[in-house]
Amino acid sequence: MTAQVPRQAWPGVVGGLVVLAGAAVLWGPALLHGRPGDPVARFLFSVAVILLVCHVFGAVLKRFGQPPVLGEVVGGLVLGPSVLGLLWPSSQGWLFPEPVLTALNHAAQLGLIVFMFLLGCELRTDRIGSRRVVGATVLGGMGLPFAAGAGVALAAPALGGGGTGFVLFFGLALSITALPVLARILVDLGLADTRLGATALSSAAVGDGVAWFGLTVILAGTGLSGTGDVATTAGLAVALVVATVLCVRPALRALVARVSSTQLLLGTLVVGAIGYAGVTSLIGLHPVIGAFLFGVAVPRNVPAVTRIGEQLQGFAIGILLPLFFAGVGLSTSVGLLGESAGNWLLFLLVLAVATVAKFVGTGGAACLAGLPVRESVRLGALMNCRGVTELVVATIGLQYGFVNELGFTILVLVAVLTTAATGPLVRAVTARGGDGSRDQAVTSDSP
Amino acid sequence: MTAQVPRQAWPGVVGGLVVLAGAAVLWGPALLHGRPGDPVARFLFSVAVILLVCHVFGAVLKRFGQPPVLGEVVGGLVLGPSVLGLLWPSSQGWLFPEPVLTALNHAAQLGLIVFMFLLGCELRTDRIGSRRVVGATVLGGMGLPFAAGAGVALAAPALGGGGTGFVLFFGLALSITALPVLARILVDLGLADTRLGATALSSAAVGDGVAWFGLTVILAGTGLSGTGDVATTAGLAVALVVATVLCVRPALRALVARVSSTQLLLGTLVVGAIGYAGVTSLIGLHPVIGAFLFGVAVPRNVPAVTRIGEQLQGFAIGILLPLFFAGVGLSTSVGLLGESAGNWLLFLLVLAVATVAKFVGTGGAACLAGLPVRESVRLGALMNCRGVTELVVATIGLQYGFVNELGFTILVLVAVLTTAATGPLVRAVTARGGDGSRDQAVTSDSP
Repeated sequence: MTAQVPRQAWPGVVGGLVVLAGAAVLWGPALLHGRPGDPVARFLFSVAVILLVCHVFGAVLKRFGQPPVLGEVVGGLVLGPSVLGLLWPSSQGWLFPEPVLTALNHAAQLGLIVFMFLLGCELRTDRIGSRRVVGATVLGGMGLPFAAGAGVALAAPALGGGGTGFVLFFGLALSITALPVLARILVDLGLADTRLGATALSSAAVGDGVAWFGLTVILAGTGLSGTGDVATTAGLAVALVVATVLCVRPALRALVARVSSTQLLLGTLVVGAIGYAGVTSLIGLHPVIGAFLFGVAVPRNVPAVTRIGEQLQGFAIGILLPLFFAGVGLSTSVGLLGESAGNWLLFLLVLAVATVAKFVGTGGAACLAGLPVRESVRLGALMNCRGVTELVVATIGLQYGFVNELGFTILVLVAVLTTAATGPLVRAVTARGGDGSRDQAVTSDSP
Repeated sequence: MTAQVPRQAWPGVVGGLVVLAGAAVLWGPALLHGRPGDPVARFLFSVAVILLVCHVFGAVLKRFGQPPVLGEVVGGLVLGPSVLGLLWPSSQGWLFPEPVLTALNHAAQLGLIVFMFLLGCELRTDRIGSRRVVGATVLGGMGLPFAAGAGVALAAPALGGGGTGFVLFFGLALSITALPVLARILVDLGLADTRLGATALSSAAVGDGVAWFGLTVILAGTGLSGTGDVATTAGLAVALVVATVLCVRPALRALVARVSSTQLLLGTLVVGAIGYAGVTSLIGLHPVIGAFLFGVAVPRNVPAVTRIGEQLQGFAIGILLPLFFAGVGLSTSVGLLGESAGNWLLFLLVLAVATVAKFVGTGGAACLAGLPVRESVRLGALMNCRGVTELVVATIGLQYGFVNELGFTILVLVAVLTTAATGPLVRAVTARGGDGSRDQAVTSDSP
């Protein structure tokens, strides 16, 4: 194996490129005009283009310390109506015709379900450092943004479908903190093993559980837009949760302890997650809620389950999930903001309210609960990271008609900007006060 | 963690089941009749049902020493028109409506492409034990079945679309040996590290390369059914192969040596495989040929590439590929055989010709090349395993109109039966002559 292209290979490389260019010139035009291409070929071609663009943007943004999800959303924005569609409108129909978008959406859903399942698997409340600080952070850090978001929704009906569902949903959307992106940013900042990092992660984990539970309640209570029966959905949701706790959890524990084949366990868990997603979708909730619930029911601290998580990283998380985030970017029309100055003002209002409420709510509550002021400020900056969770929640909001395209676009942009700002913001706050947190490592908290 | 459901949990389990049953009785009917279900929910539900049934059949067949692919195809047969469709016709429209089947097909294609890419990655000719025996085995073991298959196609035009393409394709279809299933069966039989095992694997690997090359030639030459331009396809295919050897291969070698991030390498290789699949599909060949070609271009003996193969096992090979094989079963109507006695006779003829020609061709050629008679007989029994490769080839044949539904069904059944028979057949032949091969371990051949 050579470390680079050997010198004597270059004539061959040039020859190969000449052959390829010649073939493209000779036969390319006939190919593009003569053959409509079968649907599978177009699907594969679009997948390859999306993944390639997302990887390139991800690699560029990584140099600026940003997580991969930003590259994926930005890649989708660039390929979608926001950029490529503006510059070259005919590209959209050619690159992403309706059947291809549908197929992309279905494949991406599988990645999203595995992601939510793993998120549920990793949800744990047994490693919380100071229960008082975490409790206060969740309460203040979600309560204030929720109230502020609901206030924005009441004041700006142009963002969504109106009604109680819209107000509650918008409040919930602003109170989100993204656990997986936060975990990554903490590692990048070298804060993962500190008291601040442990508090932030615990608060985000508990907040995640609260947010998905809240979304379930909103969907069950108001999400059916009048087409379904609220009592049916709520009753079935409660029955499913009760049956999961009483039956599925012990059954999974027994299964995991007995089955030695990773392949069999992988199949069972993935089938269970997809099945749960299908069932929650059938009873009128969103599929991701079922996948998350099934993940919560999986026993913790089992090596076989950890191995399965690693096996699912490769394709489901590495390839299919990026298709979902790119799809979010593809569905976003930043151009909507440009239609009127009022839209720009709305966007800046939501961004400011979301950031200030999260920062003040989290930092203030943590400070009141006894965390030193400097750490409270940094915690406030950290918890403003909305990342992937906000993107999933915004998609659900658009799907169920809580928000309209303008509201969706604003939420996506708020998610992208607050996530991108988290790293630099925490670094700025840290630089002013010196990096004191590394001294207070809480490695004793880790098992 | 308890090893089984603890005694005190049982009242809870029973209570949970009662709650679930009550909820189903109370709200189930309203749910099934009142809501059509959104497309994503139906897709997820079908995926869960297919994977569940395939896993159950796989677990049952495993007890009889059969590889997982048989469980997947048989599961598809049972869920499809062959069994469930006969017993309960309305289930097909409800369980697998057209949009769901399309989405399943797209997701399954991603699994198939990763599978073919990995197959290409593992193709190697540097570990062949005795070149003479392997060469003879490939020549005799593919030549005789090819001639016999072409003869059957000439004699039985009822199986396909007629013409040169049909005759060549049918000959190729009968000359297949499935490398991945064979490798698994050899491990199960304890023959993987013997001279016989090494010869069988090398012959199957070389044969795989020959078969995919032959299919490429058939598709480029005749496969476009008159809609395309043969010269364009053939010219572009040659240009792609030349550019792959001269440019892509050295570029991948340099990339693999420089990039340390597994995630980045995974993305690059999967994007490359999907992109190649899209390109070959665009120029009129089947996507799997592109994925295979790109896999062949990946450098061998690199730990990072091996790790990526393991990461792709989980979801792409463990979940999406089974959807493809189940899809093969779903597209097969065994009922076609029952329509006339002639169809049954045709099926038995193809099965007999395929088995006898493979057995005599492989065993005879190996014997002439100097392999002892008893090992030649066992090699003949081993190489009759057609498994997954035959299923992929049969699907391509149906897609391009080389074979009709009857021909496709017969090829699928031949693949299932020859694969299922391989283990027992080799065991029977071994039992008659004593298990002498274990003594001739060729561990010295392994690196």
